[in-house]
Amino acid sequence: MKQFLSKDMEQMERRYRGAFINSLTGFKSLNLVGTVSQSGQENLSVFTQVFHIGANPPLIGMIVRPDTVPRHTLSNLESTGYYTLNHVGEEFYEQAHQCSANYPEDISEFEATGLTPAYSDSHPAPYVQESKVRLGVEFAERHNLAINGTILIIGRIVEVFLPEECLGADGYVDIEKAGTVTASSLDGYHITQSLARMAYAKPDLPPRKL
Amino acid sequence: MKQFLSKDMEQMERRYRGAFINSLTGFKSLNLVGTVSQSGQENLSVFTQVFHIGANPPLIGMIVRPDTVPRHTLSNLESTGYYTLNHVGEEFYEQAHQCSANYPEDISEFEATGLTPAYSDSHPAPYVQESKVRLGVEFAERHNLAINGTILIIGRIVEVFLPEECLGADGYVDIEKAGTVTASSLDGYHITQSLARMAYAKPDLPPRKL
Repeated sequence: MKQFLSKDMEQMERRYRGAFINSLTGFKSLNLVGTVSQSGQENLSVFTQVFHIGANPPLIGMIVRPDTVPRHTLSNLESTGYYTLNHVGEEFYEQAHQCSANYPEDISEFEATGLTPAYSDSHPAPYVQESKVRLGVEFAERHNLAINGTILIIGRIVEVFLPEECLGADGYVDIEKAGTVTASSLDGYHITQSLARMAYAKPDLPPRKL
Repeated sequence: MKQFLSKDMEQMERRYRGAFINSLTGFKSLNLVGTVSQSGQENLSVFTQVFHIGANPPLIGMIVRPDTVPRHTLSNLESTGYYTLNHVGEEFYEQAHQCSANYPEDISEFEATGLTPAYSDSHPAPYVQESKVRLGVEFAERHNLAINGTILIIGRIVEVFLPEECLGADGYVDIEKAGTVTASSLDGYHITQSLARMAYAKPDLPPRKL
């Protein structure tokens, strides 16, 4: 095992450190965030810092860096109050990655990458038609994290689309069956292979598979 | 595609909704969080809400629900100022899952599950010896999320252990090679298979694999 201390991380070259530190959380969720500006300009950004905050009400968090491309996402979701999260599938992860390119403001990442905007009657922000698990989210809270200038956005899930055959009798959604991709560091993409679902853990019973 | 609206999610049975909503973020990071109380009692909890906040300084966030088992984790990391994050490998994911059982306060999850505490000279909280990617973290900030009573803990990574053969020349850590497991919903565990690493995206170039 190789050991790294704070001084080692401080001395890393900037891009090397970015790849290194971004690897350390473990595998990441991978979502395309769809928004539209008040003037109707659609925007699509790739996010790997999306996480569960609560089930009732259904709340989801994401970390936004104001100094990078997703700033259009931030201004759109704050001004319109809505955004979508769209799982990335194996068939279009390369196009999803391309959404991280720094396109001029008047170019939609949908057009640039060939991904297809899709609208629901009940949600104003654009979904990604190629995505098999899509969430419509209502902006709820913004927390500025003074420690490094990043922003925590909390939203409430108000609409969900998913393939019916991926929904289990107990509410578990088989996102592996839906083809959802996971990410590592800044540019690694992976599909998954299920090991097991585990039964609810109890102190007096050994671990059991479902 | 099946559609769910807010009223559908509100009407779900509590456990069904928990499994359903927890599925929606996509794949999750999977870490064991090691702490020790001021009286020396070791504690180990499984967390799937750990995410990158920044690379310089190296900051990592996690969401803690104060009403569930990890409350020992929270009190320990706040009182001692330190905790560890340990990637979960395929060889011990069942033991990691078992750490979510509600053990009495005087029982260490290390003893209960057979996982091995390991200490570094430079960090006071216990690592998991079976883990191949281990982070020593210094508690930095607590944000109470009034929207549902959860807590965002931000820490600074001050020590890292990983297998040298998993570290690329550009700083990318091959966590798939290290055997790191990813999670879905509340009880799904998965290994991964790499699709590709993608080159830095530019507006005037098509997506390219590294």
